[in-house]
Amino acid sequence: MSGPDLSIEASPEPGQARRGGRAGKRRGAASAFEQPPFRQLTIPFQPTEIVSADELEAIHLASLRVLEEIGLEVLHDEARAIMKRHGADVREGSLRVHFDRGLIMEMIAHCPSEFTLHARNPAHNVRLGGNNLAFALIGSAPNCSDIDRGRRPGNQQDFRNFIRLAQLHNIIHTTGGYPVEPIDIHPSIRHLECLRDMATLTDKVFHVYSLGRERNVDGIEIARIARGVSREQLLDEPSCLTIINTNSPLKLDIPMLEGVIQMASHGQAVIITPFTLAGAMAPVTVAGALVEQNAEALAGIAFAQMVRKGAPVGYGGFTSNVDMRSGAPAFGTPEYMKAQLIGGQLARRYGIPYRSSNTCAANTVDAQAAYESVFSLWGCIQSGTNFVKHAAGWLEGGLCCSYEKIMLDIDLLQMVAEFLQPLDFSEDALAMEAIREVGPGGHFFGSPHTQARYKTAFYSPIISDWRNYETWSQAGSPTAIERANRLWKERLALYEEPPMDPAIRQELNEFVERRIREGGAPTDF
Amino acid sequence: MSGPDLSIEASPEPGQARRGGRAGKRRGAASAFEQPPFRQLTIPFQPTEIVSADELEAIHLASLRVLEEIGLEVLHDEARAIMKRHGADVREGSLRVHFDRGLIMEMIAHCPSEFTLHARNPAHNVRLGGNNLAFALIGSAPNCSDIDRGRRPGNQQDFRNFIRLAQLHNIIHTTGGYPVEPIDIHPSIRHLECLRDMATLTDKVFHVYSLGRERNVDGIEIARIARGVSREQLLDEPSCLTIINTNSPLKLDIPMLEGVIQMASHGQAVIITPFTLAGAMAPVTVAGALVEQNAEALAGIAFAQMVRKGAPVGYGGFTSNVDMRSGAPAFGTPEYMKAQLIGGQLARRYGIPYRSSNTCAANTVDAQAAYESVFSLWGCIQSGTNFVKHAAGWLEGGLCCSYEKIMLDIDLLQMVAEFLQPLDFSEDALAMEAIREVGPGGHFFGSPHTQARYKTAFYSPIISDWRNYETWSQAGSPTAIERANRLWKERLALYEEPPMDPAIRQELNEFVERRIREGGAPTDF
Repeated sequence: MSGPDLSIEASPEPGQARRGGRAGKRRGAASAFEQPPFRQLTIPFQPTEIVSADELEAIHLASLRVLEEIGLEVLHDEARAIMKRHGADVREGSLRVHFDRGLIMEMIAHCPSEFTLHARNPAHNVRLGGNNLAFALIGSAPNCSDIDRGRRPGNQQDFRNFIRLAQLHNIIHTTGGYPVEPIDIHPSIRHLECLRDMATLTDKVFHVYSLGRERNVDGIEIARIARGVSREQLLDEPSCLTIINTNSPLKLDIPMLEGVIQMASHGQAVIITPFTLAGAMAPVTVAGALVEQNAEALAGIAFAQMVRKGAPVGYGGFTSNVDMRSGAPAFGTPEYMKAQLIGGQLARRYGIPYRSSNTCAANTVDAQAAYESVFSLWGCIQSGTNFVKHAAGWLEGGLCCSYEKIMLDIDLLQMVAEFLQPLDFSEDALAMEAIREVGPGGHFFGSPHTQARYKTAFYSPIISDWRNYETWSQAGSPTAIERANRLWKERLALYEEPPMDPAIRQELNEFVERRIREGGAPTDF
Repeated sequence: MSGPDLSIEASPEPGQARRGGRAGKRRGAASAFEQPPFRQLTIPFQPTEIVSADELEAIHLASLRVLEEIGLEVLHDEARAIMKRHGADVREGSLRVHFDRGLIMEMIAHCPSEFTLHARNPAHNVRLGGNNLAFALIGSAPNCSDIDRGRRPGNQQDFRNFIRLAQLHNIIHTTGGYPVEPIDIHPSIRHLECLRDMATLTDKVFHVYSLGRERNVDGIEIARIARGVSREQLLDEPSCLTIINTNSPLKLDIPMLEGVIQMASHGQAVIITPFTLAGAMAPVTVAGALVEQNAEALAGIAFAQMVRKGAPVGYGGFTSNVDMRSGAPAFGTPEYMKAQLIGGQLARRYGIPYRSSNTCAANTVDAQAAYESVFSLWGCIQSGTNFVKHAAGWLEGGLCCSYEKIMLDIDLLQMVAEFLQPLDFSEDALAMEAIREVGPGGHFFGSPHTQARYKTAFYSPIISDWRNYETWSQAGSPTAIERANRLWKERLALYEEPPMDPAIRQELNEFVERRIREGGAPTDF
């Protein structure tokens, strides 16, 4: 296939110091093009309550009955022991654990309603909970694609490029797991290479997978080294997060429970997100799927509090429906949005930060990808989501990270951020005098009121093509995906690695190299 | 260009009776394929309040000052006389009219907060106001397009096809003006041909343009004949509607004012929708543009009440921004959404049904068309819009009605309608017993609870392609626009004209033919 040179490697190998030259003078890569500043977003209005307090209570009570009467299978011996110690009904010779509602609610009461995730660059700290909102890059796609080279399995070069795009764009607050799984790195050391990249190629908060004790411990240590803080300070300052997708229905496996134990005991953030697809791993009714979601989320969150009271946790909602003909998961559907909004109501009921996602089932960046994503994105905003996972890049129900989708989503996220900005209601903004001056039948284009403001009055989209039909046709009728394709290449070429103290870089490299020499982590998970 | 036969004429010339055969047995064309039933939608939650009561009051008060201190230019002599009679400040020799805030608010108090639009098929009546929601087909596009034949000026065949698609789909509650302007019909008799089509090819409520007295009077008479009711009954039963786009800034021209006079005096619905593009016909600040929108809307609505107290009216919001480089209007932007939501707050403050729109600036049905449309569509839902104009088909900032966009929008509207349906919270839906039965690690796919419900559990999209990447690739990687293209052709082929009493049909034809013989309406507007 002919086309532009796509072997984009904008900087030397990550983790290697670079000296002098442009690096010495750089103002930070994110200033290489015009974009809104990095800032903590907040949702300035009440989230939408689509079910009544009584209906919400019905889900809550049913989920407590599930935990009491049915219980969960808990595969991890130490976890069962911790649960038993706290009063859960754990019986010798059985994996099934039953939880009294009083125990669950007592533990839930320990959850912080808000906390800050600390980045190695403090300007990139992110607050979760309350009316705060943060966007994370896609995580965990096995494949990646762009329209020049098509679809391919994940690999380190694409992994790094995606991380760089996340660093370049202020609207991406954190990375969110591996944007694509780099299968060209051996699984035993993959987490070490990937975490080093995430700690050096970005200075934003990153995600640690719960796939066995070593990976959690290594991830937490890399977060600590990158920030240059002590273990004690880290305990009070969550600096990385993990997502626990329960084995729905009603099962918690060993790596998950180990992940909760490691992360919570080190004061790092744990977001429990049951993977409750209605009609597959959960009841076919949205209400029933939410009962199961809520039972599993409450159990996981309560367990994190048993490990360490006050541990930073999040309530994750991922309930969606499946295509009942094929069993394929669907996203951005009416059922997905209902579940998002009710999930938000449940999280607020418990006072726990809420996580949802920007998803779609489309196979390419066409109208379907856009409408499913925007449905799910507005579901996030209207549900009062605090942490939007997969906010940029998600295609094919999460099976592919698309370069073009990342750019499209960045535009969507920037639009949402602009929408959330408060309006100016000053006398000057109300424009009484401008209206008087222009008068009936006049035009505001040339008025001093307009001239003083037009450059910054409106959000400038990066994908939308607002040319008229004739001009657009003469330009070859480009569609949104083509503009997105041009854009990621332009922007990636502007990437520069964020600065890192040489001593920290050395400590980080020494740690990673030592752990690689030791063989990394077991791969029999 | 080769391709399918697109000279689709599913029925004989409209307005001609058809007898026997399929027509005699038809169950109504809308049952020719699976779709949710025609039903009155309602929004079951509180609309989003993005500005505080104080901020809303600042807009309200500034707009009253505009009406008092600056006033509007009113070009219609009788209208000024009516205004003067009601206490407005009208001066001899001047077109400028000033309105006291007391007068405005006194008139506004006469507006009905809800009313029903009566269709010739009572099953297709539509209620506006309160928490009711209705979707109207696109209106007033000069061009139309499909991906087989490309873009072309409006014409009668496409006009009729669009009207048929509106009749076929239950989610389209009313037509909304000419979906495309049929320029192959002489302007003097165009309204007669078009209104006859709208009265015969559909049995839903239609729109009457305010482009001179004759067109309003003819439209109202056609609505009356089609329903087979008396003039007296029509006075109490609004059966058609008109949109008045003020000549922003601050001007009301003769056809507009005549339209308000004719429609309001006959008890027909008038929706005042200022065309306030921020930076062009309105201040560049969203707050300032809304001040102007509100001043013009209040003046128009108050005038309708001066013509006839209690006349059914709507508050239309159409404030958006322009591309400050080209002056081209933008749609589905963050500024557009803010204006939509605040417009809804203003309309609720006055207790008047609210109109907004599903819009985009895209030139083709790509990701941009979808995301701009879905942004504006959720703006409608979250703002508590009662009447969504241009709900299906709008492309290019309204300059084109697209066959494929109609189908895409129908899917989006059906998804929104499904989202608005209340969830089942019965014991059975909460699924406690199903969860118990399946248990930890089980699967719900084959469970009796799922089997009893899977066919109707979820909304089935008509455009979304949920196949996995491999299957989708093998099928030729179709995008959403291609599926939409296939669909409109399939569905249009199923169209059948809705039944009409032969006596009514005869009266309608006689009226239209007489008015055509008389020369129709003047074309010097």
